[in-house]
Amino acid sequence: MAFSERIARLKSSLIREILAAAQRPEVMSFAGGLPAEPMLPKVDWSEMPASMGQYGMSEGEPALREAIAAEARALGVPCEASQVLIVSGSQQTLDLASKLFIDPGTEVLLEAPTYLAALQAFQLFGADCIAVPQEADGPEIAALRQRLERHKPAFAYLIPTFQNPSGTRYSEAKRDAVAALLDEFGVTLIEDEPYRELVFDGGSATPIVSRLQKTSWIYTGTVSKTLLPGLRVGFLIATPDLFPHLLRLKQSADLHTNRIGQWQALQWFGTEQYRQHLAELRDFYRVRRDAMQAALEEHFGELATWEIPQGGLFFWLTLKQPLDTRSLLKPALEQNVAFMPGEPFFIDPDQHPGHLRLNFSHVAPERLGEGLRRLAGVVRQAQSAQAA
Amino acid sequence: MAFSERIARLKSSLIREILAAAQRPEVMSFAGGLPAEPMLPKVDWSEMPASMGQYGMSEGEPALREAIAAEARALGVPCEASQVLIVSGSQQTLDLASKLFIDPGTEVLLEAPTYLAALQAFQLFGADCIAVPQEADGPEIAALRQRLERHKPAFAYLIPTFQNPSGTRYSEAKRDAVAALLDEFGVTLIEDEPYRELVFDGGSATPIVSRLQKTSWIYTGTVSKTLLPGLRVGFLIATPDLFPHLLRLKQSADLHTNRIGQWQALQWFGTEQYRQHLAELRDFYRVRRDAMQAALEEHFGELATWEIPQGGLFFWLTLKQPLDTRSLLKPALEQNVAFMPGEPFFIDPDQHPGHLRLNFSHVAPERLGEGLRRLAGVVRQAQSAQAA
Repeated sequence: MAFSERIARLKSSLIREILAAAQRPEVMSFAGGLPAEPMLPKVDWSEMPASMGQYGMSEGEPALREAIAAEARALGVPCEASQVLIVSGSQQTLDLASKLFIDPGTEVLLEAPTYLAALQAFQLFGADCIAVPQEADGPEIAALRQRLERHKPAFAYLIPTFQNPSGTRYSEAKRDAVAALLDEFGVTLIEDEPYRELVFDGGSATPIVSRLQKTSWIYTGTVSKTLLPGLRVGFLIATPDLFPHLLRLKQSADLHTNRIGQWQALQWFGTEQYRQHLAELRDFYRVRRDAMQAALEEHFGELATWEIPQGGLFFWLTLKQPLDTRSLLKPALEQNVAFMPGEPFFIDPDQHPGHLRLNFSHVAPERLGEGLRRLAGVVRQAQSAQAA
Repeated sequence: MAFSERIARLKSSLIREILAAAQRPEVMSFAGGLPAEPMLPKVDWSEMPASMGQYGMSEGEPALREAIAAEARALGVPCEASQVLIVSGSQQTLDLASKLFIDPGTEVLLEAPTYLAALQAFQLFGADCIAVPQEADGPEIAALRQRLERHKPAFAYLIPTFQNPSGTRYSEAKRDAVAALLDEFGVTLIEDEPYRELVFDGGSATPIVSRLQKTSWIYTGTVSKTLLPGLRVGFLIATPDLFPHLLRLKQSADLHTNRIGQWQALQWFGTEQYRQHLAELRDFYRVRRDAMQAALEEHFGELATWEIPQGGLFFWLTLKQPLDTRSLLKPALEQNVAFMPGEPFFIDPDQHPGHLRLNFSHVAPERLGEGLRRLAGVVRQAQSAQAA
């Protein structure tokens, strides 16, 4: 069987397989990024017109494109509805952008750490990934300039607001600095914002694309974190030089995004009901975030350091005594606890041991303490085995 | 702006743009492949569980995979639910298969003519396409053998049942012959069957994949032609050597297919209600097919030849006096008539002038005669201009 060259780059699914085993109901899982079941809003389908069953436009439903453009403009993103493409979840933006930009050996610039599924998508198409280290308030600007001086990436892929996995929100100053550098070097920006609305502690920062003067960009978002991921409805907004290519790539990929989900998303955008749901969601997740913080202080205070995430769905722990956290997965699962090892979020996993990504949206607060107690036990045991 | 090499292979959208202009309500369109609006079934969403809003498995909903495997086994396709992958419309199968098999220069074997969007998807990934001429009962077997002796295609892509665009249904004998040749040369088969259920005149033929002894295969279908295309729910069934790769490519493309549409599709599979709907659909389209045949005899009898399609959605006309039918599109639209030129369905369009694809499912019977009368006039005028 002769497969394409790219199949050799499809990453081992070891972790995926182990985590699939973690679906058992008795497992306390800090591994995924799932919205909490109780916070999935009740939706009404009774008013959906029958015409939504017919084929639709590759661009997406016109009214939904208008609504998304209006929301983006309110954030300072200069755009028209004609620049909005509805995609089958924002994961598809990564696929389309990979097709648009990446040949084997094409350089792309990423944060370290970065979103695992983006890294895998870009590497599948053969990207040569270059990383900029992440600090608490965004990327190291000097390192970013140095990378841009030495390399010619096709694009920079950034998640500036409550990044998965690190939870980092770029400061205003760093957003400005990043925009200025990308303009200076003429590097296209792909800005991924699934978590923007999940903000717990106030503060805000407009998208980086709104600060660009010259360079091309793609801004992408989704309803998966705020409404219903099962709809598979996301969007991208692109500068007019990129849009026609992305549209044709979308058509070739799956003709158009399902209209049922698009119609449902449209019922929510810009409504008072949605604003209220988002407020409830933030309150709910803030409580879970705070409960996680308290339990972490109790069980991981001696073992790790972390920033308190001001939004998003994850804590990102750095072990004081680093070890390959992938080796913790099996003993943790034997204790019915799942988490996400930090190494796969880096281009060079073996160079970045000692991080754990812990989701706080999924595990019920009453099981949280027990789960973290067991996980801390697994870490201690591995560290003493390592020391021995 | 440096795009990937493949973007240079994204085909000109000239025809697409002209056809988009044909969306005006006054246009009588024989161009598309849309189900008739009156035959979109009424669907009920009231029983859908809230859990369908959550993230789902990349493989698809387990119960839907079981139902599809059961239907496929009833057609003679040897498979288990574990071989079924739910995709975002069967167009996505083409994208996933392209990723699995095609590097720039990879040979793939197609029918001539073949499905336009498949040709474009394979060419986007850089395929070197090899064609086997289509006859009224399937491909020229001697030509197929000759191609397989001289080339080493990564796969053969075939649409054996009411092909888009030609309407051809392979005979039993040719299905056997094709299966034997693919087995002999060890070439993977991708069998695309969107139209199998739209059969008007009886007769049946089991899928080619059910006749294979050794070689790998992907069998793909959809609910778009029989239920609701707006759901964007299709499926592929693959041999176990291919399935794990396709699953990971699916996950990288869009995580999973929307669950709302999957749930709705599951409400229909295997039910008496679905059987009845399919029977009504066949009756409805048979009437339209017959009306089209009568109108064609009246207006195109002197101009063209064609086979009466026994299923599917299209007539495929061959002009007795060939000309480039792409040149007819503009004058036809000026007469408020749209059709699909035949040339783009071939690897080498300029070598295959003189075909028109005419859809019979969409235009209301009372407008049919007038539309074809105008179109025949456009053909006659172009032919006399050519002769002059």
